[in-house]
Amino acid sequence: MIRFEETICAPATAIGGAIAVIRVSGTNSFDICEKIFFPSDSNIIIKQQKGFSILFGEIRFDNEVIDEVLVSFFRAPRSYTGENSIEISCHASPYVITKILQLLINNGAVSALPGEFTQRAFRNGRLDLSQAEAVADVIASSTKSAHRVALNQMRGGFSAEIGKLRADLLGFASLIELELDFGEEDVEFAERSELKKLISKVKDLADKLSDSFKIGNVIKNGVPVVIVGKPNSGKSTLLNALLKEDKAIVSDIPGTTRDTIEDTIVIDGIEYRFIDTAGLRETLDVIEGLGIKKTYEKISQASVVMLIDEITDDSESINKRIRAIREIIKEKDKKLILIINKCDKSQSGQEEELVEKLELIKSENLVFISAKEKLGLDNLRLKLGESIGREQLNSNEVIITNVRHYEALTHVSESLDRVLTGLENSVPEDFLAIDIRQAIYYLGEITGEITTDEILGNIFKNFCIGK
Amino acid sequence: MIRFEETICAPATAIGGAIAVIRVSGTNSFDICEKIFFPSDSNIIIKQQKGFSILFGEIRFDNEVIDEVLVSFFRAPRSYTGENSIEISCHASPYVITKILQLLINNGAVSALPGEFTQRAFRNGRLDLSQAEAVADVIASSTKSAHRVALNQMRGGFSAEIGKLRADLLGFASLIELELDFGEEDVEFAERSELKKLISKVKDLADKLSDSFKIGNVIKNGVPVVIVGKPNSGKSTLLNALLKEDKAIVSDIPGTTRDTIEDTIVIDGIEYRFIDTAGLRETLDVIEGLGIKKTYEKISQASVVMLIDEITDDSESINKRIRAIREIIKEKDKKLILIINKCDKSQSGQEEELVEKLELIKSENLVFISAKEKLGLDNLRLKLGESIGREQLNSNEVIITNVRHYEALTHVSESLDRVLTGLENSVPEDFLAIDIRQAIYYLGEITGEITTDEILGNIFKNFCIGK
Repeated sequence: MIRFEETICAPATAIGGAIAVIRVSGTNSFDICEKIFFPSDSNIIIKQQKGFSILFGEIRFDNEVIDEVLVSFFRAPRSYTGENSIEISCHASPYVITKILQLLINNGAVSALPGEFTQRAFRNGRLDLSQAEAVADVIASSTKSAHRVALNQMRGGFSAEIGKLRADLLGFASLIELELDFGEEDVEFAERSELKKLISKVKDLADKLSDSFKIGNVIKNGVPVVIVGKPNSGKSTLLNALLKEDKAIVSDIPGTTRDTIEDTIVIDGIEYRFIDTAGLRETLDVIEGLGIKKTYEKISQASVVMLIDEITDDSESINKRIRAIREIIKEKDKKLILIINKCDKSQSGQEEELVEKLELIKSENLVFISAKEKLGLDNLRLKLGESIGREQLNSNEVIITNVRHYEALTHVSESLDRVLTGLENSVPEDFLAIDIRQAIYYLGEITGEITTDEILGNIFKNFCIGK
Repeated sequence: MIRFEETICAPATAIGGAIAVIRVSGTNSFDICEKIFFPSDSNIIIKQQKGFSILFGEIRFDNEVIDEVLVSFFRAPRSYTGENSIEISCHASPYVITKILQLLINNGAVSALPGEFTQRAFRNGRLDLSQAEAVADVIASSTKSAHRVALNQMRGGFSAEIGKLRADLLGFASLIELELDFGEEDVEFAERSELKKLISKVKDLADKLSDSFKIGNVIKNGVPVVIVGKPNSGKSTLLNALLKEDKAIVSDIPGTTRDTIEDTIVIDGIEYRFIDTAGLRETLDVIEGLGIKKTYEKISQASVVMLIDEITDDSESINKRIRAIREIIKEKDKKLILIINKCDKSQSGQEEELVEKLELIKSENLVFISAKEKLGLDNLRLKLGESIGREQLNSNEVIITNVRHYEALTHVSESLDRVLTGLENSVPEDFLAIDIRQAIYYLGEITGEITTDEILGNIFKNFCIGK
């Protein structure tokens, strides 16, 4: 539903804190404000209030004071939405919030839909579509890397990359279309080999961006990890050892809740979600031949499987377990890390001896640790990072995290593939032009030059209310 | 712990919304802000920023942008705390909030204790103590009446009443002390009968205030109600019928949660908490002679007991149940409402006939309803209101809701009682003066003229962080 004449309102904060903020945006924001808000300085005329200013006063209804509030004023176009907006900062009481929203609605505002403020910001050219999408990701980000990628996108980093690709393709397209105009004369304004080089370059960039989705998805959604091992091999001790004491301030914020089903550990800015280990006793039994379904289910959810064994275990039983797990994860894009625990008890040369006898392949990692004595954990963290391609994060390159962008980039790449083949086979310009336009179209879908109500609806329905 | 040199910071909103607000207050607020916040207009000098203004810009750390934020500026004494303050409005991401708080702390701020902002407002004379206490009540209020009483107190309504009492007593005290100064000459500056009248008047007012605590407590904490009745007598149908559809907008606010153990119904601005009815089958059995403990426990939690019977029940079995319940609630300050359900099926004269045969006493109410057909519910709501003294709420009188105030007022009343007895028995002025000073002392405790760190500690520890 698209509507722009309406003035919208919604709470922008959650219940539970000391103050709540109610947002109002639209042509009538100031008029509606004037009907319910009475500044402590009664000489003030709200309609004349400057943007980026604050007034203290009362929200009143029928001469009854509902609350003492601060109201922030923003004038179009210098506001989040690009429209006249106000923000009412009131006491975070359920009664007060409800009452103020009712008053706003009774005076002509309508309840905002999820993401409607941001959708208006997009419509009014304050953000392009990929920036608008990043707003929700910024809000949801709980780790440094997720935040960094989302904020970069919100600030237009990704849009800039797409803009570069688009500019190159538009240049190419105009040459082709020019040749089409002179079609009868059979002119070639550009060397075919030069064109091929250009398209290859653009395609490489598009492929690189869509490849970054793999790490981008990890950053945004975390890495599912499963630990399998015999009872008493030290699974819980290891989890506790990995849990650094970085909960700190965030746990003081009212309303912070944690999913209790999974243990979540942030290592080096990446979130690892340890899939519940409650049933792992059976899992181990299963690996040792008692069945396959439950283990398979658990492992199928994970990107990384940690098999934990003890330094005193004999190599043949370890190899047996490795083979069993490898059987389950084969051909899937999962990594295996073999952990040998209790190495505080290992004797000189024992680790080297074990390495000799283990049948690990190249893509599998081996780490010796002592969960109890906290030995080898840094190495384990490093291996975890390597297993998900953590190193890509250290570069300053743009990373995409959005499946919609990934799909669009895949389409871009396919179109450019057809252009390359076309150039190879000297197909007529008009066929080349169709594929070029297709690629430009898909790039435009990302930033919102090309869009439909359906696309917009899908994007903004997942936003929270008040943003 | 009392500290005023420190600049304090805390999140003022809960996790879960679109935006979060971080509050900073203290002498160094602007200096600290300058170190982490970079306005989009780089010519702006933050230390010169006027109060009640807003800037847009970036929070940065080590040249990395943490978030794009709005910062509101307030200059002492025109701020909530009376100190220089800023409010940072950022994206409500756990990472962003934590990072900004860390930056504030790294640059010299300290984490605020619960209620510390309000405590500073009190210390700086922006609010008296009873007003400060009401801030937490305003935030917690979820019904109209709770909100109205709390807001009135926060705005100084209660303080004004206390001020009047105090002024009267101070006038009285000065007369007495004057007589003391002229002690040798045995002068009486005031007619003893006039003094008695004055003290009686003040005591009546103090008593009236402390009496209001009964309804005040109901307003603040809700009314616990229990419904007892045979299986299928219509308990759930009644509960559902009473549940008006007024949940409306509040359920859209992120983070709104309801206690699922009790059904809560707001009638006419008062919250009724229906104690879980899961075990009520046994309760009824119990009433009919099978035991007493469980029923007793449930009923002991309630202020109002609703006994639900059917129009077709014979009067003797109803009377038996009334007697059983009366036995349990005897001498306790609980009300019984007898509900006769299924009256849509009653025949002409049947209700009158039943009334004749029932052994209700004056303090007990009788209501005929049909839960299914929604008949008689308004009358039931009325009786519920009467049973808790709802009518007191319609007057515009001050109502106290705080047990600390109640205790102080009880002490005031006791002291004034001693003054009255003293006047009666013509005790020397110095004895009168002691009791008068005592009464003034207790009044001062309410508004905070007289206070100790311990009192303050107790009051503010129950506040939320960020207020």
